[in-house]
Amino acid sequence: MKNAKLLLCALLFFLVPVLAVMAESEEGGQMGLMWVTWIGSIAALIFALILALSILRKDPGNEKTRSISKHVQEGALAYIKQQYKVVVIFFVFVFALFLVLSFALGLISRFVPFAFITGGFFSALAGYIGMTIATRSNARTAWAAQTSLNSGLRVAFSSGTVMGMVVVGLGLLDLSIWWLVLTLFDLPPAEIPPIMITFGMGASSFALFARVGGGIYTKAADVGADLVGKVEAGIPEDDPRNPAVIADNVGDNVGDVAGMGADLYESYVGSVIATMALGAIASLQLPGLTALQAIQVPVTIATIGVICSIIGTFLVRAKEDATQKVLLGSLRRGVYFSTIAIAVLSFLFIYFTIGAKFLGVWGAMIVGLIAGNVIGYFTEFYTSDHYRPTRTLSNESLTGPATIIIGGLSLGMLSTLIPVITVVLATLGAFFLSGGFAFPGLGLYGIGLAAVGMLSTLGITLATDAYGPVADNAGGIAEMAGLGEEVRNRTDALDALGNTTAATGKGFAIGSAALTALALLAEYGNKVKEGIIHLFSDPAASELFEGFYAGLVNIVRDAGGTIEDITLNINILDPRILIGLFLGGVLPFVFAALSMRAVGRAAGDMVKEVRRQFKAKPGIMKGADEPDYAACVAISTKGAQREMILPSLLAIIAPILIGILFGPFTVISLIAGSLATGFVLAIMMANSGGAWDNAKKYIEKGAHGGKGSDPHKAAVVGDTVGDPFKDTSGPSLNILLKLMSMVSIVFVTVCLTLNNQIVGLLQ
Amino acid sequence: MKNAKLLLCALLFFLVPVLAVMAESEEGGQMGLMWVTWIGSIAALIFALILALSILRKDPGNEKTRSISKHVQEGALAYIKQQYKVVVIFFVFVFALFLVLSFALGLISRFVPFAFITGGFFSALAGYIGMTIATRSNARTAWAAQTSLNSGLRVAFSSGTVMGMVVVGLGLLDLSIWWLVLTLFDLPPAEIPPIMITFGMGASSFALFARVGGGIYTKAADVGADLVGKVEAGIPEDDPRNPAVIADNVGDNVGDVAGMGADLYESYVGSVIATMALGAIASLQLPGLTALQAIQVPVTIATIGVICSIIGTFLVRAKEDATQKVLLGSLRRGVYFSTIAIAVLSFLFIYFTIGAKFLGVWGAMIVGLIAGNVIGYFTEFYTSDHYRPTRTLSNESLTGPATIIIGGLSLGMLSTLIPVITVVLATLGAFFLSGGFAFPGLGLYGIGLAAVGMLSTLGITLATDAYGPVADNAGGIAEMAGLGEEVRNRTDALDALGNTTAATGKGFAIGSAALTALALLAEYGNKVKEGIIHLFSDPAASELFEGFYAGLVNIVRDAGGTIEDITLNINILDPRILIGLFLGGVLPFVFAALSMRAVGRAAGDMVKEVRRQFKAKPGIMKGADEPDYAACVAISTKGAQREMILPSLLAIIAPILIGILFGPFTVISLIAGSLATGFVLAIMMANSGGAWDNAKKYIEKGAHGGKGSDPHKAAVVGDTVGDPFKDTSGPSLNILLKLMSMVSIVFVTVCLTLNNQIVGLLQ
Repeated sequence: MKNAKLLLCALLFFLVPVLAVMAESEEGGQMGLMWVTWIGSIAALIFALILALSILRKDPGNEKTRSISKHVQEGALAYIKQQYKVVVIFFVFVFALFLVLSFALGLISRFVPFAFITGGFFSALAGYIGMTIATRSNARTAWAAQTSLNSGLRVAFSSGTVMGMVVVGLGLLDLSIWWLVLTLFDLPPAEIPPIMITFGMGASSFALFARVGGGIYTKAADVGADLVGKVEAGIPEDDPRNPAVIADNVGDNVGDVAGMGADLYESYVGSVIATMALGAIASLQLPGLTALQAIQVPVTIATIGVICSIIGTFLVRAKEDATQKVLLGSLRRGVYFSTIAIAVLSFLFIYFTIGAKFLGVWGAMIVGLIAGNVIGYFTEFYTSDHYRPTRTLSNESLTGPATIIIGGLSLGMLSTLIPVITVVLATLGAFFLSGGFAFPGLGLYGIGLAAVGMLSTLGITLATDAYGPVADNAGGIAEMAGLGEEVRNRTDALDALGNTTAATGKGFAIGSAALTALALLAEYGNKVKEGIIHLFSDPAASELFEGFYAGLVNIVRDAGGTIEDITLNINILDPRILIGLFLGGVLPFVFAALSMRAVGRAAGDMVKEVRRQFKAKPGIMKGADEPDYAACVAISTKGAQREMILPSLLAIIAPILIGILFGPFTVISLIAGSLATGFVLAIMMANSGGAWDNAKKYIEKGAHGGKGSDPHKAAVVGDTVGDPFKDTSGPSLNILLKLMSMVSIVFVTVCLTLNNQIVGLLQ
Repeated sequence: MKNAKLLLCALLFFLVPVLAVMAESEEGGQMGLMWVTWIGSIAALIFALILALSILRKDPGNEKTRSISKHVQEGALAYIKQQYKVVVIFFVFVFALFLVLSFALGLISRFVPFAFITGGFFSALAGYIGMTIATRSNARTAWAAQTSLNSGLRVAFSSGTVMGMVVVGLGLLDLSIWWLVLTLFDLPPAEIPPIMITFGMGASSFALFARVGGGIYTKAADVGADLVGKVEAGIPEDDPRNPAVIADNVGDNVGDVAGMGADLYESYVGSVIATMALGAIASLQLPGLTALQAIQVPVTIATIGVICSIIGTFLVRAKEDATQKVLLGSLRRGVYFSTIAIAVLSFLFIYFTIGAKFLGVWGAMIVGLIAGNVIGYFTEFYTSDHYRPTRTLSNESLTGPATIIIGGLSLGMLSTLIPVITVVLATLGAFFLSGGFAFPGLGLYGIGLAAVGMLSTLGITLATDAYGPVADNAGGIAEMAGLGEEVRNRTDALDALGNTTAATGKGFAIGSAALTALALLAEYGNKVKEGIIHLFSDPAASELFEGFYAGLVNIVRDAGGTIEDITLNINILDPRILIGLFLGGVLPFVFAALSMRAVGRAAGDMVKEVRRQFKAKPGIMKGADEPDYAACVAISTKGAQREMILPSLLAIIAPILIGILFGPFTVISLIAGSLATGFVLAIMMANSGGAWDNAKKYIEKGAHGGKGSDPHKAAVVGDTVGDPFKDTSGPSLNILLKLMSMVSIVFVTVCLTLNNQIVGLLQ
């Protein structure tokens, strides 16, 4: 407690210099305000370290809990090692490709290969640290839950906070390092963000592998454990006799923790970088705004968010005998405080640095913050058993599995309407408020800032989200170690609490993905223009290109024959643009299909293995023989590795291939089409899955006959279908949308060059 | 047999004058070649009448089959009457609205209200006649199946042919009548097709109600009958003790026959009209092509299609003892003959009338024909148990309902890739072949002709599709009337045959919907231009509008201040366009959700009613009491009426509302977005549903333990989920996409006027 207060004072002390320079940094050198990101980054990482150490000081319990936790740690580590091995091959390959493209062919910047690698590295690191702490917190949470609900919460929430802080801290660190490096190489501020997009691509590539691989792992284990253990053998969830039980608990950590960490690292960094890049472009249109100023707005808002999140986490505490409701209130208090503090401090920052003239930009950010909360609320509304949709869904179980499946699919589809309308209004609102109708570039910058605003509270919202899997694991350990009914009830209560806050977190992740993808799409448009200017300084080449793409690109030349000005009219009524929409529209479906099929296949392998073990060692069921947990862990690991490659490559190859074959204009509509479909599909899959999960839990609490009844069995079918929806395909889609844009941006010159050669051949 | 040969000669005789005038009608008056549509129309209707009379001469069987058939007839009639009552209210309301908009406000043509009504009327009539014959053919098919498989097929196929011929005949009749009326009013040819789009809107509106209402009816009855009868009470399919059995059989007729008839009437007429409209615009760009010539190409191709389809049906015959395989071959022979004949005759027609210069237009049509066959083949590939995907899916049933659901969803999602790529290539191919890169207007016309080409074989493909429900019903009647195992096996074989050909038919329906929607979207772009010219002859109003929509619309004025030229740049990178994509992307999901939920609710009511009857009259199960069939029919009827309204209105209101609020440019992207999502979703739902259905049937044939085994139960869950997918939401989506475009076209002036007032308020 004393430590905490000291820390609080120290953090507030950090804020003073930030606010001080805000007042005077109109000018400033190449670095400007960018040094504050170092403060935000280091504050977050130190805070994470302190919390991590405090967790490790807690009692990991008796021999049994420690041993189970050890199993989980080892399984998770084994998986992560295996995954990283596969991913390293991919990264080395792309790195080599980039080396050739940059040093040998001069098509891209020399910094690109290295930026790409660091993005992947930090994304992996964020996931790894989060997972390491989570696997060390599970037994400690279970053990602490013996004392009280609040004690359990504090350990689990600390673990979640470590994750949140590591994600934002490493995000800002990578930004800070690259900013420093690139300024040392004397790059002007406006040229820095586009290079940084490459580390966004690195982070997103890694995140996609981690999400898809982790998602396949966790759901293969979960589905496998449930189908044979619960349904066929009739043993309860997390029963130690189930050979897949360790794999299931490992899955929570590699999918929901390591996968989510990499995912949100990617979201966070992606939104900030895209906005920086758009800021650099916007500053060209506006005399009163320097590139450096425009670039530092998103990173400083992110830094303010980190500081406010740290303070917010101190508000998450309650009396020892607090009820579940009180604890939920205390979690929410932390989030709300951070949100309001960010809004106020950002106002002051923008007002005092870039001036009252650009307060519209602050408005755009606030629109994002509000939109995030609206989407979060409706995610909860559609998926929590406190509200009508999920309760109505649980009624569908009375007429069997078919009707609850139809009901859940239709609930998920219907739940997409409000988030889409919210994003539409946020897009228009951010564009309008930041002055986009007068200066379109500024409006696009505003859309980016809305995404940054939405994610500015990530430090704390991720904490409230990432503690859920820890509580879930703790429940598993309590069950396996036989810590008693009471403890299991408490961990279940923590888990339920986590589901509620996680719903809000998911809303933020999905909403920010849509806005970030829009910002990246706008940035891609800018890069296409630049690419055309860059490549077609040769008038003959540009005339050929322009002739073929007549109507879509207008190039104004001066008397000397060089390119003066370019406008893109990506006219939706042109067949070359329309086909991009169709192809983009189908990609998320194919991606979702591949990832779902992967879960199905890996789960099938798991089912066979569990059945084999039950048959080979009849002693398992009697508790006489110990099942071979490691064999199941190995199967999930192998399945995930094998199956994650195809869908991940799809996202990377599709935009490059379309770009080469049909040109960059079709890629713009490809991205737009995949965004229109993918966003809706992602919400649908997340919400259908969440609602099925909670409808099942609602029945388990006693509705419609409770556990073991026919409606419960029907609800379990719904939950099983929902597993890959909400934990594999749905969240991966968010990454897919952004990664496609980033890949397009990075490869724009390559695609333009090759496409122009194809155009030449056709003529 | 003698009759048939006479008829064949008569039809060939009809072709002679058509070919003759082809050679010389370079000029010709206002009517040009349009009189040939009268020939096509009358030939189709006479042929339908002859077949209908020949069906009625067949033996309807013993007292029992006749009585059951009577029950079905009465139930179907009761439903249709009820549905038409509700729809009439809608039509009267819209008619009145059109009267006000045209006669009082002068915003639309005076012909619009009447065209709208006739479109609805003919669509309803096509469905009604098809259903009337189908409900009279079911008992006759069952009775004939006592003799042989071929005898059964001939009755059922005749009924399907009546449907096919009525749809194309009435389609051409409505076109012919309106062409005559509008030329009598001295409208120049180029102004006629846009008015005709209104009757397309009438036809589509009715079709949407019929598909959604019929789809809800049939699936509520089916799901209700299955869940209580098969699963709970354990009685077989079509058992007369099941109170919902008549409703189930009525459902086949009102959903799969009347609904499908209205649906395909809408598709057929929509593709022809959209192409006529695009032809009128294309002719403005090309000196060698008159508006009349361009307009008569699609209708004449349609007429050639009708004649070739009639001849094709004569090839569908086999020896009395023919096997299922032989019969499939004979069905295919008919379709292939028609396809090739159409290709050849269309070539001659285009070569001799508009000349070798425009043979590219013929190429576009052929691209459509080929694309339809490719999509049809892959529909069959993904949904038939002769191929791997559905067989693999049936394996998923071994691990229970959850895995078969996941597998089916993922199969459906994956199956969207090839159809989308096919449509993309067909779009580009048709655009390119018809010369779109030099003359964009001609390219769009080519895309329309691809759709017309795809649907030109409708007369016979619909016949091979629409006989399925008759065979299905015949099976039900055979079961209920106790005609014996042999007869039931034969009707099942006919049904299975129908499923195979129906898959191809579905491919054509979906593919043509996408191409027609693209053509309509292009036509909407033209109408927006025209609307702007028409309304903003007042320069002040147009400047206001242009100022607000800067960048999206460029208006060139001459010295006197009038509008000279307009170009639309519906730039996908503009936020006002992007939001349309998002909103459009979510609409098909919401529509699918509403229609699925509707099935769920109506099925729930049915389940309660069947349970109530079993409980109130225990004698039913013993065969002592007759169940109250009428009560179940009434429940399905009421449920369908209540639930069909909201989703149908969504399609009509959304584009008008968006048009008024955000302007016509956002509507363009709204339609494009809904097309990108809706097309994919429609294929996915159709194929998932089809695959689940056939996986279940595959198990029933003996795989994985056959009927009654656990895998079979899991497969039944999949089939039940698939029911609303493939028979309610999926096919309705096709209509939704076209209806939205048509509504936008018809209301373009209204939306422009009101939106301009909003723009005025904002400034």
